[in-house]
Amino acid sequence: MTSQTQQVRADGRATNELRSISITRGWAGHAEGSALIEFGNTRVLCTASFTEGVPRWLKGEGRGWVTAEYAMLPRATNTRNDRESVKGKIGGRTHEISRLIGRSLRSIIDTTALGENTIVLDCDVLQADGGTRTAAITGAYVALAESINWAKAQGIIKESVNPLKDSVAAISVGIIDGVPMLDLPYVEDVRAETDMNVVVTGSGDFVEVQGTAEGVPFNRDELDAMLDLALAGCAELSLIQHETLNQQA
Amino acid sequence: MTSQTQQVRADGRATNELRSISITRGWAGHAEGSALIEFGNTRVLCTASFTEGVPRWLKGEGRGWVTAEYAMLPRATNTRNDRESVKGKIGGRTHEISRLIGRSLRSIIDTTALGENTIVLDCDVLQADGGTRTAAITGAYVALAESINWAKAQGIIKESVNPLKDSVAAISVGIIDGVPMLDLPYVEDVRAETDMNVVVTGSGDFVEVQGTAEGVPFNRDELDAMLDLALAGCAELSLIQHETLNQQA
Amino acid sequence: MTSQTQQVRADGRATNELRSISITRGWAGHAEGSALIEFGNTRVLCTASFTEGVPRWLKGEGRGWVTAEYAMLPRATNTRNDRESVKGKIGGRTHEISRLIGRSLRSIIDTTALGENTIVLDCDVLQADGGTRTAAITGAYVALAESINWAKAQGIIKESVNPLKDSVAAISVGIIDGVPMLDLPYVEDVRAETDMNVVVTGSGDFVEVQGTAEGVPFNRDELDAMLDLALAGCAELSLIQHETLNQQA
Amino acid sequence: MTSQTQQVRADGRATNELRSISITRGWAGHAEGSALIEFGNTRVLCTASFTEGVPRWLKGEGRGWVTAEYAMLPRATNTRNDRESVKGKIGGRTHEISRLIGRSLRSIIDTTALGENTIVLDCDVLQADGGTRTAAITGAYVALAESINWAKAQGIIKESVNPLKDSVAAISVGIIDGVPMLDLPYVEDVRAETDMNVVVTGSGDFVEVQGTAEGVPFNRDELDAMLDLALAGCAELSLIQHETLNQQA
Amino acid sequence: MTSQTQQVRADGRATNELRSISITRGWAGHAEGSALIEFGNTRVLCTASFTEGVPRWLKGEGRGWVTAEYAMLPRATNTRNDRESVKGKIGGRTHEISRLIGRSLRSIIDTTALGENTIVLDCDVLQADGGTRTAAITGAYVALAESINWAKAQGIIKESVNPLKDSVAAISVGIIDGVPMLDLPYVEDVRAETDMNVVVTGSGDFVEVQGTAEGVPFNRDELDAMLDLALAGCAELSLIQHETLNQQA
Amino acid sequence: MTSQTQQVRADGRATNELRSISITRGWAGHAEGSALIEFGNTRVLCTASFTEGVPRWLKGEGRGWVTAEYAMLPRATNTRNDRESVKGKIGGRTHEISRLIGRSLRSIIDTTALGENTIVLDCDVLQADGGTRTAAITGAYVALAESINWAKAQGIIKESVNPLKDSVAAISVGIIDGVPMLDLPYVEDVRAETDMNVVVTGSGDFVEVQGTAEGVPFNRDELDAMLDLALAGCAELSLIQHETLNQQA
Repeated sequence: MTSQTQQVRADGRATNELRSISITRGWAGHAEGSALIEFGNTRVLCTASFTEGVPRWLKGEGRGWVTAEYAMLPRATNTRNDRESVKGKIGGRTHEISRLIGRSLRSIIDTTALGENTIVLDCDVLQADGGTRTAAITGAYVALAESINWAKAQGIIKESVNPLKDSVAAISVGIIDGVPMLDLPYVEDVRAETDMNVVVTGSGDFVEVQGTAEGVPFNRDELDAMLDLALAGCAELSLIQHETLNQQA
Repeated sequence: MTSQTQQVRADGRATNELRSISITRGWAGHAEGSALIEFGNTRVLCTASFTEGVPRWLKGEGRGWVTAEYAMLPRATNTRNDRESVKGKIGGRTHEISRLIGRSLRSIIDTTALGENTIVLDCDVLQADGGTRTAAITGAYVALAESINWAKAQGIIKESVNPLKDSVAAISVGIIDGVPMLDLPYVEDVRAETDMNVVVTGSGDFVEVQGTAEGVPFNRDELDAMLDLALAGCAELSLIQHETLNQQA
Repeated sequence: MTSQTQQVRADGRATNELRSISITRGWAGHAEGSALIEFGNTRVLCTASFTEGVPRWLKGEGRGWVTAEYAMLPRATNTRNDRESVKGKIGGRTHEISRLIGRSLRSIIDTTALGENTIVLDCDVLQADGGTRTAAITGAYVALAESINWAKAQGIIKESVNPLKDSVAAISVGIIDGVPMLDLPYVEDVRAETDMNVVVTGSGDFVEVQGTAEGVPFNRDELDAMLDLALAGCAELSLIQHETLNQQA
Repeated sequence: MTSQTQQVRADGRATNELRSISITRGWAGHAEGSALIEFGNTRVLCTASFTEGVPRWLKGEGRGWVTAEYAMLPRATNTRNDRESVKGKIGGRTHEISRLIGRSLRSIIDTTALGENTIVLDCDVLQADGGTRTAAITGAYVALAESINWAKAQGIIKESVNPLKDSVAAISVGIIDGVPMLDLPYVEDVRAETDMNVVVTGSGDFVEVQGTAEGVPFNRDELDAMLDLALAGCAELSLIQHETLNQQA
Repeated sequence: MTSQTQQVRADGRATNELRSISITRGWAGHAEGSALIEFGNTRVLCTASFTEGVPRWLKGEGRGWVTAEYAMLPRATNTRNDRESVKGKIGGRTHEISRLIGRSLRSIIDTTALGENTIVLDCDVLQADGGTRTAAITGAYVALAESINWAKAQGIIKESVNPLKDSVAAISVGIIDGVPMLDLPYVEDVRAETDMNVVVTGSGDFVEVQGTAEGVPFNRDELDAMLDLALAGCAELSLIQHETLNQQA
Repeated sequence: MTSQTQQVRADGRATNELRSISITRGWAGHAEGSALIEFGNTRVLCTASFTEGVPRWLKGEGRGWVTAEYAMLPRATNTRNDRESVKGKIGGRTHEISRLIGRSLRSIIDTTALGENTIVLDCDVLQADGGTRTAAITGAYVALAESINWAKAQGIIKESVNPLKDSVAAISVGIIDGVPMLDLPYVEDVRAETDMNVVVTGSGDFVEVQGTAEGVPFNRDELDAMLDLALAGCAELSLIQHETLNQQA
């Protein structure tokens, strides 16, 4: 990265630089696992609710279930959004992100090792400044891991089995004025020609690649440059997750 | 109060003692006013969204509008509650509390001085341990006042007028094993024979008195004892609100 | 009361005088208990539906369940209101009143004596002129008592047990131009500075006290004056309820 | 009709005999027109809400609008039905009957003479014992006529024009054990092989013929016999409607 | 019919002439029975979903269940209609037609012979040009019969029993400028003074007669003329249904 | 591709081979543009509804609007799915696919050239066998192009401007037993470790890349192999689209 490239970002970051990342474990006292995660000004509260038993359609198969729900507080954003509870229905964007988070977390879960238990991950955006879904996935992993530790401490899951096959983190990348950049805040996100969210395991494999040309379609070289940035960014996040989980609770 | 009476509470408080109260102004960066309020382990995020203009049914009358919405995160409580957005409808309890908060705040607003502007107060319970509606009212007042200061700074409201006629705070009281007590946490709330929420202005007048016999009906003496506790508790909260608002933001 | 005070009311009543009260038992032929109750021009049809069994969450605990639903016909009021069934959701006011009626009736029920039976009280306002929720509670008690008599006659409840611990009635009070008044019709209700609904047992204890400053906050003396009026008014209603129930059906 | 045939009915009526019919005008004090109509034990409250103006899609065409909504109180029937407002949606049966009532009343309205005014007919079944939709249509006509008289008295509609082209009434007929019968109460309705609702103008023409084979399909002769009964029954109802409207209100 | 009468129709048909009818069996590969039916430009896809078991309220009674759902694609019509799934509720017209189709098909089913099995008929209008409900009933019968053949081939229903008591078909008739006509396309339907849908068994008996005066009420002679046309039209449809079912699948 | 690799597919296709593709223009007579598209046994009806004017939030900006809705008939699949209109809400999957189709089509539209006009694309799956969203996008492009031709023929859009900047097509790819494959039918889709949908312009640039690890996370080489297959597949589809549009309608 040349200094020239770095000057394109309003917040002074290099194009391959994450925002300031913070993860606070145990922020929500009632949940079996929780994390308040911050990607710059984006702030998401992730809780993991661990309950014994599984939904009816899964009973008796010896496997567990992990699912997720994403939502935003009405004033998480610059202007207030009506509550989905008041509107009486969930919007497409909310549905889409909830499904993405659920799939991402399930990809690193060994449901047989989990046994007939259910973990619901709630990711509520308290403040939004771009990248809320990637912060949610990254924080949800910490809450999920904490809830599994809780279940082991309770004896619900045996110490000898490990329902976590890997860790998982996510980051956004995009192309702005032709330059690929990592971890877009809101001001960059609205200007991006292409916006991509990438979910990567701790081992460096892809779980989800979701690239969208908001303006101009993108070519293979641009796609490759974005993937390079995302893999490096997720590797950094992966380290932070592990440090957080290794801290004394 | 005798020391004997004081020993009835699990957390060691005197029967006329508030829990530890904390109010953090400006916790939600996008809102025109905000406060993270804590009554012990109860934690509510209150935001005030100030917008120019009023709902259609109020247009052209030269008056403003203040309303409120209350909600709980799904894992604010001991066990997870389904989201109202997912259920597709708002429950009676949520409706009831939202209406109570709105009425309470409107009671101290001079809508003519506010002009044709709207303030929406969102009170989202991040962690619940009893008294969420009273914490919400108390915190919403701080967010409301901050948003009016913002509107004055912006020149939307003239410095010379004051839409705030008074301040407002709220506290719960109850009778447990025949003893009237102030500011009930969840463990006391479920045991209370009578539960009362009282909303009081900074001047010490009543805005709302809502007493409910959960178990045994209550007599006039018990009612009077609860009102005494509530008035004293709200006076303390009122002081904390004013100190918070007098701090440099 | 001086004659001067009495002249403040449009309908010529004294400030401590109820409107004309009428209760017709058995108006709805299919229900196990029913009452058409009138407070002046306010007319509410109350039915009690008695069914054996309880909701799933209460099964096997040896206790019964009493709940209530309140609604208004679309043209019960001066101008037509859209049906909540057509709007697809129940408004906050409806929820709030239904919950109030349910709590009020449960306060005088011995659920163990009721056994695993359910009573649903439906209170439908056929014509509204203020005080619909207090008329609903007062009429619902009559329907409830009648349905328990029915259950005894059927042998579903033994003659020797009594699920009714007491009776219950309710009345509104308010302050208009500084004067406390009993049982407000609509024209008074809209002008009241403070509006209070009080639910009282036959023995004279409080079940609910819900006072709201619609305009100016109220002080302790005003609160006391309103409570005095309400206790006296409920005592009168209590007498009428007992007379009605003692009449041959 | 032989006397033998007449003995088939549990209530002793002849096969071509209406139940006892009662129409009380003005039962709902707030509405511009209203009628409490009874066909035996079936009791329906019909109100007409007259408002100036028409829905947006009809504006500026110089014509009025008449529509209807039908509903049942939860305990109008033998066993309690859940409220459609609580279920959050209107059932097919309710929709179907509301549409039938609306079409029936519109058939006798001269919308140009009505001018740009709207009449909403609410038909709420307070007690159901078969034939609720036919009672609703018959009573709604009386409420409708009364509301038009009100509009003339108010000067909203000129005395010289007449929005009512005719009157309209409705009755049910059916075939039970092979015998065609008029005006079925619930006990007959559930046993009927064929059930038909017929809506007829005061002049004796058909507005609606809705015959349904609940059990065995019906032939042309049976259809003709049912139509004969219905025309005679509606002629009787038409007389009662006119007498009711000619009475001093 | 004189040649003069025949010239009143835009498409050149005689007043007693059906549009071109086409039924394609097996158009929907996954369903147990299916038919794409065309009445002129009206095109409806009917599928029969056969499943073992019955709804809970019918369990253990040894009888089967047949029900139907009707819907229109948003652009089946001249101008686009919003989807009912997007609106979040089903309109009255959809409900009414679904119920009509269900009743019509149940009228010719011997539910005991069907055994504890359920058949759901889905009728989706791909293109609408009048008469969609009658095409739906006529096509649904073919899909239903095919699904019963499938169940016999699977051994779910014994060869020796026959759940089909008869066949069923439906057609619309109407009066335009005083002339009774058969099988109305959209351009005729909107002009009709009276519109009638008639459902007839293969044996020539009535299952449903639904006549509605859209403009001028109709008299007995007009009703008779419409019934004559409908019976003849349904007899023709009945033949086409049987030919279709006799073809090698 | 070796012949060995080719034998892995149940339908005998080579791993880089599309299913049989068929596009029938104008299948829905009322729409301004329409196409019935088939990818093997997957059959989707795409209609384009062209209307003058734009949604309110876009008025006066001189730009047009393109949006899409996707849905499945209840028996498009192997077992029947409940209708979303009956359930009263749209599922997450439906929302997600509707949004994907809308974004994909907007990516090749010059909204300024379109002028203040709206095109709604409805994609209804009549029969599902994998790849319904990619078939929908590919077919919707044909319907969209046809509707723009219609608008030019009507003079709503000038001949000289071209709202279509490019064409767009989509295809699914996946990895099954470690082998990347093109255009997965249902039997392959359920077995795929990774499933990817790729949307590509006629010029060969990416509009959307949505890859999901259903089972095992995928590495960079696998991603590259899938992208190669998808680009080649979309190029073929692009040719078929152009041939279809060049045929005489």
